[in-house]
Formats: sequence, C-alpha cells, structure tokens
Amino acid sequence: MKKISILLASLCLMAAAAADEGMWTIDNFPAAEVEKKFGVKIGDRWLKAAQLATTRLENGCTGSFASGDGLVLTNNHCTWGCIRNLSNDERNLSDEGFMAATRGEELQCPGQQVSVLVDMDDVTGKIAEATAGLSDADANDARKAALTKLESACESDADRKIRCEAVTLYNGGQYFIYQYKRYDDVRLVFAPELDIAAFGGDPDNFNFPRWSFDMSFLRVYEDGKPARTPNHLEWRQSGPVAGEPVFIAGHPGSTDRSLTVSQLKMQRDVSIPLYLYRNVEVRGRLLAWQNTSPEAARAVQQRILGVENGIKVRRNQLKALQNDAMMATKIAEENALKERVMADPDMRAAYGNAWDLIDGAVSTQRNIYEDYLFIESGAGLSGSLASYAKTIVRGTAEREKPNEERIRAYTEASLPQREQRLFAARPINKEYEKLALTFSLEKMREWLGPDSEYVHKILGNDSPATLATRLIDDSKLDDPKVRKALWEGGSTAVKASEDPLIKLMLSIDPDSRALREKYETEVEAPEIRGAEMIADARFKVFGTEIYPDATFTLRVTYGSVKGWEEKGKIIDPFTRTSRLFERTTGERPFMLPATWIDAREALNPDTPFNFSATTDITGGNSGSPMVAADGTLVGLAFDGNIHSIAGGYWFDETLNRTVGVNTAIMLEALDTVYGADHLLDELTVVN
Amino acid sequence: MKKISILLASLCLMAAAAADEGMWTIDNFPAAEVEKKFGVKIGDRWLKAAQLATTRLENGCTGSFASGDGLVLTNNHCTWGCIRNLSNDERNLSDEGFMAATRGEELQCPGQQVSVLVDMDDVTGKIAEATAGLSDADANDARKAALTKLESACESDADRKIRCEAVTLYNGGQYFIYQYKRYDDVRLVFAPELDIAAFGGDPDNFNFPRWSFDMSFLRVYEDGKPARTPNHLEWRQSGPVAGEPVFIAGHPGSTDRSLTVSQLKMQRDVSIPLYLYRNVEVRGRLLAWQNTSPEAARAVQQRILGVENGIKVRRNQLKALQNDAMMATKIAEENALKERVMADPDMRAAYGNAWDLIDGAVSTQRNIYEDYLFIESGAGLSGSLASYAKTIVRGTAEREKPNEERIRAYTEASLPQREQRLFAARPINKEYEKLALTFSLEKMREWLGPDSEYVHKILGNDSPATLATRLIDDSKLDDPKVRKALWEGGSTAVKASEDPLIKLMLSIDPDSRALREKYETEVEAPEIRGAEMIADARFKVFGTEIYPDATFTLRVTYGSVKGWEEKGKIIDPFTRTSRLFERTTGERPFMLPATWIDAREALNPDTPFNFSATTDITGGNSGSPMVAADGTLVGLAFDGNIHSIAGGYWFDETLNRTVGVNTAIMLEALDTVYGADHLLDELTVVN
Repeated sequence: MKKISILLASLCLMAAAAADEGMWTIDNFPAAEVEKKFGVKIGDRWLKAAQLATTRLENGCTGSFASGDGLVLTNNHCTWGCIRNLSNDERNLSDEGFMAATRGEELQCPGQQVSVLVDMDDVTGKIAEATAGLSDADANDARKAALTKLESACESDADRKIRCEAVTLYNGGQYFIYQYKRYDDVRLVFAPELDIAAFGGDPDNFNFPRWSFDMSFLRVYEDGKPARTPNHLEWRQSGPVAGEPVFIAGHPGSTDRSLTVSQLKMQRDVSIPLYLYRNVEVRGRLLAWQNTSPEAARAVQQRILGVENGIKVRRNQLKALQNDAMMATKIAEENALKERVMADPDMRAAYGNAWDLIDGAVSTQRNIYEDYLFIESGAGLSGSLASYAKTIVRGTAEREKPNEERIRAYTEASLPQREQRLFAARPINKEYEKLALTFSLEKMREWLGPDSEYVHKILGNDSPATLATRLIDDSKLDDPKVRKALWEGGSTAVKASEDPLIKLMLSIDPDSRALREKYETEVEAPEIRGAEMIADARFKVFGTEIYPDATFTLRVTYGSVKGWEEKGKIIDPFTRTSRLFERTTGERPFMLPATWIDAREALNPDTPFNFSATTDITGGNSGSPMVAADGTLVGLAFDGNIHSIAGGYWFDETLNRTVGVNTAIMLEALDTVYGADHLLDELTVVN
Repeated sequence: MKKISILLASLCLMAAAAADEGMWTIDNFPAAEVEKKFGVKIGDRWLKAAQLATTRLENGCTGSFASGDGLVLTNNHCTWGCIRNLSNDERNLSDEGFMAATRGEELQCPGQQVSVLVDMDDVTGKIAEATAGLSDADANDARKAALTKLESACESDADRKIRCEAVTLYNGGQYFIYQYKRYDDVRLVFAPELDIAAFGGDPDNFNFPRWSFDMSFLRVYEDGKPARTPNHLEWRQSGPVAGEPVFIAGHPGSTDRSLTVSQLKMQRDVSIPLYLYRNVEVRGRLLAWQNTSPEAARAVQQRILGVENGIKVRRNQLKALQNDAMMATKIAEENALKERVMADPDMRAAYGNAWDLIDGAVSTQRNIYEDYLFIESGAGLSGSLASYAKTIVRGTAEREKPNEERIRAYTEASLPQREQRLFAARPINKEYEKLALTFSLEKMREWLGPDSEYVHKILGNDSPATLATRLIDDSKLDDPKVRKALWEGGSTAVKASEDPLIKLMLSIDPDSRALREKYETEVEAPEIRGAEMIADARFKVFGTEIYPDATFTLRVTYGSVKGWEEKGKIIDPFTRTSRLFERTTGERPFMLPATWIDAREALNPDTPFNFSATTDITGGNSGSPMVAADGTLVGLAFDGNIHSIAGGYWFDETLNRTVGVNTAIMLEALDTVYGADHLLDELTVVN
C-alpha cells in the first residue's frame, strides 16, 4: 500500500503542473501557461471584460450580463427560491415556467441580490500589522476587528451602492477588500418548466451524457428601471467546437484542497457523515410529506432537489476521502512540505508549529462539533421562522455594540443584505415550518442525547412535535411587518416580545454565545493562525504561481471542450436534441413539458444540447458564463460530472468535467419552443 | 500515528486474554478460566441445563423456558412482528399491551417458530473430504451439496419435529450439524404496552442508565396443547447483586471479529454506508407517512423502531471502523498472523495464499455489490408481497431439482420453515407495500443509474411510484390461499400466473441468478476457502482455546454485574424504579402507560429496574436469560450500551456492557402493575 501511495503522490504532483487545474484570481491568472498550452492570448482587457460581465447571485450562484439593459443569464436552479416565492395556489411557476411578455410583467424576486466585482484592494500587510505579536485568540479578535474597520472605511468612501467585503485567500496567506456594485431589485424574466430545466432529476444530477435546459433570465433594476449594463457578453449562435479552449468566470463557493490531513479526517469521520445522516432523513420526510397535499408539493418540490444535490455531493466527497490511496497522497504531500519547513531553521521557527496548532484545534472541534452544530449553527432549530428569530435576537443585540466589536455577520457592511432578507415578503408554509422544526429538534435530541442540558432547556417536558407545533402556530414572525417592528425596536422590543420563537431564542442565546466563544477561541483562532503559517510556507516553497482555495469570490478557470474515458468507454463531449426525446418516459423526472413535445418536429435533432469541458469549477459556479478565447459566450455552466465532486479535495484532469448548456440549444429553444422573440432581439448574437 | 497504533495493538492483545470476552460454544466453554476469575464452577450439567432451557426464536431472537408448560420469556421487541400481525382496527396490542387471562385466550403468532438445540455433530472431517483437491468454485458447490446431504440424512434419521441445520464455525474452521426440536405453534401470552416496553424509544436505545420493561411471554404448543418443557429456569426474586458473576445463554446473530482488513474496509467503505443511506431515508419516509392515518401509524410504529435500531447499530459500527487506531490494530494483528504463517514453510504452503484469495474476492465484490444487493438480494424490490413472489418463483423452480443441487435456502431441511412463513395469514397493508416497493425501486434506479439494463428491464417507461402502485394494486399475493395454490402448483402454475409480481419476478430471475452465480463463484468461494485457511492457521498458532464468530447458534458468555466509567463519571450498574417516574415527560417516547402511572404509589421506588453487565453479547441475544452461577434467572438481556456496538469487531471489557431487565422489577410489576397472578403462579420463584 505504501509503495503505491507514494507513486500516486508523485504522479498527482506532476499532473497538477500540466492539468487544466486552478480557480485563479483575476490578478494572478496564468496567461503564459494558457498560451503555451492552447495557443491563445488571454490579456488583461479580456479578463477585465469577463470580470465586469460576470455577476454574483447572493443566494450562492453566478450569472452573466446578456444585454445592456440588465438582463442576467443564470441557471434555472439558481432561481428556484425566487420561483417558489412567486408561486401560489393559482400559479405554479415551477411546473408552468414563466416568461414576461413585456418588462412590465417581470416579477420582483423577494430578497434576491446581484453583485458585480468592481475593485479589489490588497490589505494583507494591514492585517499582519494588526495581529503581530498577539496570542492566537487575541489575533483572531484583532483580525476580525481590522477587517470590519477596513470594510467600513471602504464603504464610507464609496457611494451607497458599493458593498465592501473582506476576502481571505490562501487560507490566510492574503487578505483583500473587494468592492461590489450591488443590485437589490432583481426580477424574473424567463424560466422554463422544471421538467425540462431539471430533466432527469436527481438520477441524472452529476451525470453526463445529459439533457438539462437549466437556464433562466433575471433582470437587475435601478430606481425602478432596467439597469444600464454596458459590459455584457455576445452569444455565439453555434456554441463551441470539440477541443476548443473555454474559460469560466464565476464564483466557486468553497474547496478544501489546502486543508491538513487532520482537517480532512474531521470531515470524513464527523462532519460529512452527520450531514448525510440528517439530510438523507430529511429527503425521506420531504418525499413522503409532499404527497399529502398540492401545497405541500409546491413548498418542497425544489427543496427536495436541493437536498438531493447536497446528498450526492457529500456522498461522493465522503467516497473521495475514504479512498485510502488518495488520503495517502495527501499525507505524503503534507509530509513533504513539513520536511521542507523543518529542514530550514528560519522556516521551522516561523511555521514549524502550524500543523500541531491545527491538529489541536481539530481535536477540540471533534469534541464540541455536535453541540455547536445543533445549538449555535442552528441545526437544532430549523426553518425560516426560527432563522428570522435568531437574526432578530442576535442582530438587535449586536447592532447596539460598536461596529468593530460585533460578530461579523452583523457589521455595518453586512446589515443591508441581512435586512433585505429579513424584511422581504416571502410566503411561509406553516406546515412545512413545523415539519422542519420538529425534525431538527428530534435530531438535536438524538445527537446531543435526551439528558443534554441544551435539550432540557429547549424541550422541557415537550416532545419535539408538540413544541414545534406550538412555536409555529403561535409565532407571528411570518408577517414581515412584525419582523421589521422587532428589528427596529431593538433589544428592548425583543426582550418585551411575547412571540414564542423570540422567547426561545433569547433563552438559549447565552449558551449559544458561549459555544461560539469556545469555538472561536479554541478552534477557529488556532486554525486560522496555523493556516496562515502554512500558506506562507507554501508561497516560500512553491512561489506565488499557485491558486487559492475557492471562497465564493471571482475566479477564472481554463480548459477545453472534451469528453473522458469511463470504464473503458469514451464519452463524447456533446449531447444532441434527438436523444432527449428518445430518453423521455412520460414520467417524472424523465417527462417533457408540453411545449417541448409540441416543438419536437420543429427542433433540429442534431443541435448540441449539453456539453462537457475540462474546466475546474465547483458549487457557486452554477450559472457561470463559459466563454471562448474570442470573448463570446458559448455555454452556461450548470453542473459537473460525478468525478467533479472529488474536486473539493483535488483536481484530476482525466476525469473531472464541467457540464454546460450549449448556446446553440438555448438560442434555438428560445425561438422554437418559447417564441421569445423579444428576448432574442435583446441579445447580441454572433455566428 | 504508527507508534500509538502498535502500542494499542499490544494492549488489546493483552486485554483480550484477561477480559470477559467470548461467545463460547457449549462444547468449548472456558470453565477453568471462569473458575480462576470468579471462583465459581460451571460444569457440564450447568451448561446442559442452560442449553435445554434456552430457545431460539426464528425471527432472530432468544428466549428461555419459564415453566414446565411451555411458557417462554423473551423481549417485548422480539414479539413486535407477532403483535403487529394480531392487531387490527379494533385492537392495537402494541399501544394497549396484552394479557391472556386464561390459556384459551392466548393468541397464535402467525409464522412464528421456536427451536431448542438438542444435539450437535461435528462433520468438519466429512466436509474436508468432500472438498479435497477441488478448485475454489467447485469446492464451494461440493461443500454446499455435502451440507445439504448431511442435513437430509440427519432429518430422515429423526422424527418430523427435529430440524437439522448445518453450522459453520470459525469461518470454516469447523462444520457441524445441529439438531433442533422445533415448535411451530407459538402463542402470545403477555406483552406490556409499547410505551413502557420501549420507554425512551430511539433516544434511549443503546443508552444506559435505562428504564425499559422489555419483556413478553410466549407459549409453545404441541398438538394444540401447551408443550411439556421440564427444562426451565427458576427465577430469583431479588435479581443479581453488584459484582456477581452472570452468564448468558443465547443465539448471538453475527460478529465480524475474524474478518480480514480488506473485508472490514469493504464494510466501512461500501456496505455500511449504503445500508445507512437507504435506511436513514426509509426512517424519514416512515416517520412522515405514519402521520397520514391511524392504520399507517399501526403498520409502521414498530418497524420504525426496528429501522432506528439498525441505523444506530450501523452508525456506530461505521464509527468503530473509522477509528484509525483500531483499524491499525487490526492491521497489526493480521500482519502478525501472516508473518507467523510465512515464517513456517508448511504453514506458508497451506495458508500463505489465504489473504490474497480474500482480497481478490473483496475486489470483485466491490464491483458487483450494488447490482447484487438491489437485484438478487431484493433491495430493489422490497415489501412482503415482493418477497412472497420471489419465494414462489425461486422456490418452485428449486424444489423441482434434486435436493443437493438446490440453492440452500430451498433444501428439504429449509422448506418447512419457509412454507410456514409463506402460508401464514398475516395482515398486509397495501399502502405500506406501495411505499416500500416505490422506495426500493427509486433507490435501485438511484444506485444502479437510470441507464442500467436491470433498471430498464424492471421499470420500462414507468416511474417507480407508477409501477409499484400497479403491481401492488393488481397482485393477489396478499391472499394466503393464492400463495399456497401457486406454491403447490409448482413452476407450471407459476409460469401460467397472471399475477404481475410473479410475472416481474419471473422476468428478472435469469439476470438475478446470473448475479448469484457470479457472486458464489468469484466472491463467496474464494472468501470461504481463504477463511478456512486462516481459521486453520489460527488453530495452529493460538490453539483451540479461542471462540468462533457469532452465527445465530447457541453460545454461552460470562461476565459480572458491573457499571463502567464514561467521560470520567462512574455509571452505576443498577437503575431504580423511582427515576423512571421522574424521567417521564408525558410525551412519547418518554410517556408512561396508565397502568404504570396508576401503580406508581404501590411500586417500591428502590426496586432495581435495568442493569448492566460485562457479558459479551450481540444482536440475536435479545431475550436471552441472564443466569447466575447457582442456575437461577436474574435478568433478561435486551440491549447493550453504545460501546457494545463496536463489539461486532472487537471486545473492550472496560466499556462494552450488556443491558438487562432485572427479575426483581419483572416479578414486582407482573404483580403490582398487571395483576398477573396466574402467570406468577406458573413461575418458580426463589429468593
């Protein structure tokens, strides 16, 4: 075993250098490498154009401007929250799809925000200064205060429409303040029916070959009018060709490629299994509950797909981490870096302690993980109403402190987005709320044990179902006006509130804060300090031609349109429309909507539908533009193949693939299936 | 890590020698060791008496004779199937409990069988002879044929009431034919309400301190009259005292202490995670579905507890296998044995290949595991009706072959039990059947993929729900007469049947048999051959003073009444009645039935309720008598503490505990709570 592992380790290190790997920041894009490999020049103007045409959807996705009038292309699945909030008894936009015939018919998505990165400021030196000579715990506080202060200074310099956000890169190797232009008024323009947008459902999720029309259009508004967005992409009518280089600009959410072995084992042994135990059961409950009424079905139809997606991701992450050979590679890599550090007296003095610091933090984290998850992270009190209550209780108290002393989720820079979400009028299904809250209370009791002090404090003599029913029935937090009044009334109003969810959150808040304090001091602080040391050591050993782990900040990744070999079979990178119709069974999730069945004869059977590429992306990249070297949009990233999930820990170019919707089918279907002439007219389409 | 592991390895090996470890066969009980440790003599008469007073419940439990008239003490949870089968719209025996006032009121449990081991015959030499010089695959066939032949010979020698069963011990180190006296007429005599029998429900399952009154009485009948059972146990009124030696006779179901590292990793990486993914979701579906109607609740109330038990077991097994230090111990032990084998030329020639054989088998098994599980093992076609259909299709075809050529589940020796189950009149809830079948079809599609040939063959263009609804609605297999007619009509009747479940099973049977053939030839055959070699090597290296893995055959285990230390806190081995009443919340699963609330004042608050002991047991031991050295019954085993679950892989005397119901509370509650004078009169109670 040992022999094989070390062999693999060296293979992987070699492969990494040559592979289409890396989620690169705009300021460190490996243009020379790309030119050498693909013979195309990606200059600063190209990168700047991609930056300004790429949007971040604050619900965890990416989009791109498709016209000068604020039209945003993204995935259908990135608009599910909006679609659910806009649906009601008369109108199920998920089943029926939606197309605004005029701008007047475009529907505002409650709470939705869209941002565009406009500037970046390196503050690594300022943070180093603020934390120099402090203990890990004090450095942790000082670092947060400094970041909050830098954000505030940035925002007061800018006009109200700029949001300033601290960004940690290389796990603490670099700190930045990123400036985003923010759009708060986002409207739904077009969404196909769920049956074609998510054709194949969970069975096909992360599969390829694939036929999902996973697109939607949103539009950003300013002052009640479509925003001016001069930086938009031209669409290529024919889509990409096989082997063509392709680039993805977007906001990959999170990867764990730089974690230590002890942190990976924490995921493998503790956090991923617990995530799966909870969510696999949630899936079962939602699937059974959705059959109880049409309202129930509407409330959870897309949530189920989201839960199923999370399960598939975690399941395959766990599979990756359980691969002894890959873990041996990680161990070998870590040991190689450690040896380099230990062999140099200066590096040893500066970084030698890093791994012990992190191992100690992980060991504490293993002990408090369940308590922290269920109490402070809220896994024991789930649902929108409980979440509103927590925001109100915690936020009103935090807001009364000086900005730099607040928990970072409630700093001045964070409040506008938080308030927009808190005040947005979204339909609340109280039966779903009961189900979610009951489930989370049950799991809390299961994992912390019936004799836990937290469980006693929360449940008293009630069963989870009894308590959840009473809390949800009696709470008025489904009314945005009630939430707003409490928020604006501050901690005095909160303490006087008779709302049972507010009262419960108030009663548990001191315990919850104590857990947070313990986590921040004993887990987070040494982890960050250790990670900073390792990041610096990596810069010293490997130079700066390396990319940071994903952090839901703008990255550009490169690759080419390419299939792969699966169990001896070559997978073609393109699928075609004809096979979509052959593959339908008339039953969900392989059922086509009537619009597509009616259009079958009119559609070209050879039109490329979905395609695969070697680009290195992850969750958060959903909705990302796939751009050719000539700057045209050729596809819309919406998924990866099953091997892409292991990309959370390492990139394997032989197997890891992005899956996108081809612009060819998007343009043809908008015309033939949906008759969306007004939208086609708005796009700039080139051949 | 390495240093720690080897240290642990040697600690464990030392501890094993001194610990209360081992599920010993009656003929190899370490009486000298026990006398040395506890100062009590356990002679052959003691062991024989325990053997004849101990019963095996063929649904996977143990019991003990409590009177000369066939009264059997077992756990309440071992009678849940019977209770569910006897409940209906008017009568929910699970909620209400049950007590027959007279023998005439005792209710027959459909399909229930009880056996008593009466004789054992060592046939190891005969099997060695039958397989000598054959290839692994041929040896596998020859071994099965020889065991079938030996069973038949044994049964034709004996009267109809004797069942002969081949038993594999030491993973192939020994083969036996066990003779059981069989009782087919088993009736329910007494069962307390579920709320007290399973007080604390899933949250308290595998927990201790504990307050579960997990007892029931059954009675075995012969020729319509209570059977004569002279070998029964006397009950000790006061229960055991702290530190007292205690012995458990029973039928531990299965342990994996002798598996190779590759086999353990197969469980860790493949089979246990897949079990959990399926069953955690089942749990969610059943919990949501039970709220849809009182019938639904009755149909799944106890099933949910069963599913939850399975989840807790597997979850903690996985946790044990994910413990890198324990896995390192297993690796060290395996390497130590290998080194001993390889250092001796004779042993090397005879056994040197064993681990490679097993590793190759495991590698094949990893490739076919999902196909085999969902198709041949039936995880893709769940529910009672689908299971009936499989038995009928497979069984009628097998029955037409010569006995020795049949699949062993359908040999002459196996048929009576199989037929009794097939013909038993049990209520079938078709809505539950649909839920179970839909779920299993969905999981089959999820795990094999929508493009699997098996999935295409079974689902065609239907969705899982559509197909399941049609199959269950149209099937007549819920009628025992229909099942009997098909069974007796043989393969001709089966082939002519229009029953949709029969037709589906017939259509998939060739594929299913092909998978079985591949599994038997490429997985089972080399695994058994390799295990036989390792077992022989162990006998050579360690002598015969070792015990075999559990196989649901009679074992005796020893230990003492003892608590343990949990996170620095000493756990007392006894719980008392007073705390039961303090711990009730009035809400399930911490709700007491009215009978107990009414009896609160009359019950002695100091009466010992449940207790813990160091005895080494596992699932299948449920319902086992806990017997003192003087031969009296002092408790009823019903569970282990949370650490007992790792007992599947190793025994840790510092932590692993059996949990039992004290005879003191059983006798007091039968009197005070239930007024069961007629049952108390039937028992023999000593002080």
